Amino acid sequence: MAEKIDEVFKVIDEQRDGYLHELLELLRLPSVSANPTCRKYIENAAERLCKALKARGAGCEVLETEGHPVVCGSFQAKDKGPTLLIYGHYDVQPPDPLEEWQSDPFDPVIKDGYVYARGASDDKGQLFCYVAALDAINRAGLQVPVNLRFLFEGEEEIGSPNLRKFLLHRHELLESDAVVISDGSQAAPGVPAITYGLRGLAYLQIDVEGPKRDLHSGVYGGIVVNPLQALVDILSHLKDENDRVMIEGFYDDVLVPDETERAMIRSLPFDEEQLKEYLGISVFGGEKEFHPLERRLLRPTLDVNGIWGGYSGPGAKTVIPSRAGAKISMRLVPNQRYKKITDLTGQYIRKVTPPGVRVKVTPMEGTDPVLVNTKSREVQIAARALEIAFGRPPVFMREGGSIPVVSLFSELMGSKPILLLGFGRPDDGIHGPNERFNLDDFFKGIKTAVALFFLMAER
Amino acid sequence: MAEKIDEVFKVIDEQRDGYLHELLELLRLPSVSANPTCRKYIENAAERLCKALKARGAGCEVLETEGHPVVCGSFQAKDKGPTLLIYGHYDVQPPDPLEEWQSDPFDPVIKDGYVYARGASDDKGQLFCYVAALDAINRAGLQVPVNLRFLFEGEEEIGSPNLRKFLLHRHELLESDAVVISDGSQAAPGVPAITYGLRGLAYLQIDVEGPKRDLHSGVYGGIVVNPLQALVDILSHLKDENDRVMIEGFYDDVLVPDETERAMIRSLPFDEEQLKEYLGISVFGGEKEFHPLERRLLRPTLDVNGIWGGYSGPGAKTVIPSRAGAKISMRLVPNQRYKKITDLTGQYIRKVTPPGVRVKVTPMEGTDPVLVNTKSREVQIAARALEIAFGRPPVFMREGGSIPVVSLFSELMGSKPILLLGFGRPDDGIHGPNERFNLDDFFKGIKTAVALFFLMAER
Repeated sequence: MAEKIDEVFKVIDEQRDGYLHELLELLRLPSVSANPTCRKYIENAAERLCKALKARGAGCEVLETEGHPVVCGSFQAKDKGPTLLIYGHYDVQPPDPLEEWQSDPFDPVIKDGYVYARGASDDKGQLFCYVAALDAINRAGLQVPVNLRFLFEGEEEIGSPNLRKFLLHRHELLESDAVVISDGSQAAPGVPAITYGLRGLAYLQIDVEGPKRDLHSGVYGGIVVNPLQALVDILSHLKDENDRVMIEGFYDDVLVPDETERAMIRSLPFDEEQLKEYLGISVFGGEKEFHPLERRLLRPTLDVNGIWGGYSGPGAKTVIPSRAGAKISMRLVPNQRYKKITDLTGQYIRKVTPPGVRVKVTPMEGTDPVLVNTKSREVQIAARALEIAFGRPPVFMREGGSIPVVSLFSELMGSKPILLLGFGRPDDGIHGPNERFNLDDFFKGIKTAVALFFLMAER
Repeated sequence: MAEKIDEVFKVIDEQRDGYLHELLELLRLPSVSANPTCRKYIENAAERLCKALKARGAGCEVLETEGHPVVCGSFQAKDKGPTLLIYGHYDVQPPDPLEEWQSDPFDPVIKDGYVYARGASDDKGQLFCYVAALDAINRAGLQVPVNLRFLFEGEEEIGSPNLRKFLLHRHELLESDAVVISDGSQAAPGVPAITYGLRGLAYLQIDVEGPKRDLHSGVYGGIVVNPLQALVDILSHLKDENDRVMIEGFYDDVLVPDETERAMIRSLPFDEEQLKEYLGISVFGGEKEFHPLERRLLRPTLDVNGIWGGYSGPGAKTVIPSRAGAKISMRLVPNQRYKKITDLTGQYIRKVTPPGVRVKVTPMEGTDPVLVNTKSREVQIAARALEIAFGRPPVFMREGGSIPVVSLFSELMGSKPILLLGFGRPDDGIHGPNERFNLDDFFKGIKTAVALFFLMAER
């Protein structure tokens, strides 16, 4: 079995250029799910992936949802074997702010061993590892030892609003022994990881309305409540000086971190000075009583993600705007529930809104935090696969981000194991400008997938 | 003399359509001084005004500055007489937010006795009254009884950054017995006013920088100081719950309002309920211990005029932006000085900026508050001119806005009287969408100018 894996690894090393080329083609499509004008590229990306799977002998269909389509592929093993469900997403974040990219986000550039493009790491590069793995086993002339289902969606970056309904109607797509998801990162460059915990997310938009028209601040300054001032006051009330969220009840369901786990997390690779330099900051923020990694992995947070209102052009305009708005999000940890947090946040915001303006709070996305049982056979096999591909055993970690579908899978598939194998790096710059994916990680990701398939078939 | 004035008034009534037509042509030019791409229209507007003056027998030149040009006209009376300097500005505010205009801001619409267009009231409509007055006296076959100087600038809405230098080099342009400025409003519709006090202005931009790239809030939320959060905290520290500015030293030089003046201001026409309805608000803001008009006229204020940062597009983006910014302005009253206030504000902002981000405070505009001596002969004559044109005597008032050039004139011309005769209305919507100018006010403004010219020549 180790021989078979080695044979396929050789093929992968020979096919590096081909796999990279195919990934670059995928990265050229601006499949921004949040942008309605990108619908064409969303469809192109789905079709391209479907073709890629068919070319490797898998069955595949692009299935419509009420939003963007889902690519559903399946590969039947010749011999009996377990079934793995591979989830990924072919949609990407908006590329804003465009002016901070050093190259076109949708014209990938190879530099210093990285490919730079929107979606390189999140998630086109990672999902494509599984397509390439199937290809490599075929090329090596070997039988694919497991049954595979592929589920590549196009709405992950907007919170997968239609996936639940889609899967509830096509429950057969979920029939499998484990779900495999690569949409995250290693613990540190070269240190593979299995993620057993994800933070949840509650994302809201706040709209503040004051006077029904924009006003001149010379005439109305000091007379009306300025919606911009009201908005910054509301936002400023959300956290205290120690970065503690002040929404009443916010921490009620937060699990007190276990001392063993805290110690384990504090021992993860983390170079504070290097990270500060990478980020260009002199001090970290956040709750001082927790280590930065604990803050990322074990603690809930709140961030303002966007704000607008009034005049932001060149020069000066002495306006009191009629309205102002902001987007905020909270990262949640077990056992917080996004619905409850969303409600509490709305109540709190209405409470701290000054008289003289109207406030509207619109929930935009929500997902619950996830914890996976690390003791299962499948998780242990995934650990061996990572060790074979990366040359060292993975660490078990939580991740600060959220993958709404993981909550969904854990809800829809009961106790089936969810394998979260992140091939990216913490500094891939996902969601920001100059997103990148390390090419070594790309090929190690393909190898991990191959090893996982063979090890999983062993009984 | 009253007969002469009556004769000219008749001409004005006959020429209403012609004067309006000429104003509409001027309003069609988007002479937005803050927008570099509007430079062509700035030049067109200056040339059009120059032509209009020449057509009435005035000498005129469009003189370059380091920014936008100044229209300098002069009309020599046949007989000896005093010299009036007419100041106005042909530039306009940016029309944002465009989507809230019910018609094109630069395609004037006449509706219900108003002309709707950017610059209708501020200040093209008002400055044009003086051109039309000259025209009407000519048409009536009468001698213009005063010498006139016209100074129409193109940078008022961006704080007149080049006018000081321009006038210091051409001091002869200022040689006059009084300055007349119509760039404000009546006390209430039909109640003319002479403004003897203007608030000053200190306008600043705040830029907050954190991490050197945009970050994913799942990975860095709770670890880095979010520049957006820092910005809203800074802005929230600028005023307390009672709308008092918290910048240390801000109120040190504020004149305690005189009880007689407070009582006079409280007795000005002010329909609280009507204004609330017009604004679409249920309660006023501001310092509770002062009447709304006192807050507008006697008290300094602070407003956030614009804010930006992060993602403001459709959908959700969980970003921690690298930077965020805001524009703020303070209205100042005697004896505050904008330079001192600007310094104090910068110091205060740096003090309340949380560690982990860098802040930059950029002064963008500044002007000192102004008080005019209401007992001078010229002010009393202007009052009679307004009474003749509007049919009732003016009230003496302060205005909440700022006209930087008034500070400049008072500095450069020593004790020469400054006549601030606002023909607009408080609800003209200047600086906001759907700016308008009442047509009756337009023609009364022309008549005021005519009466002023004749009365001023009386000795």
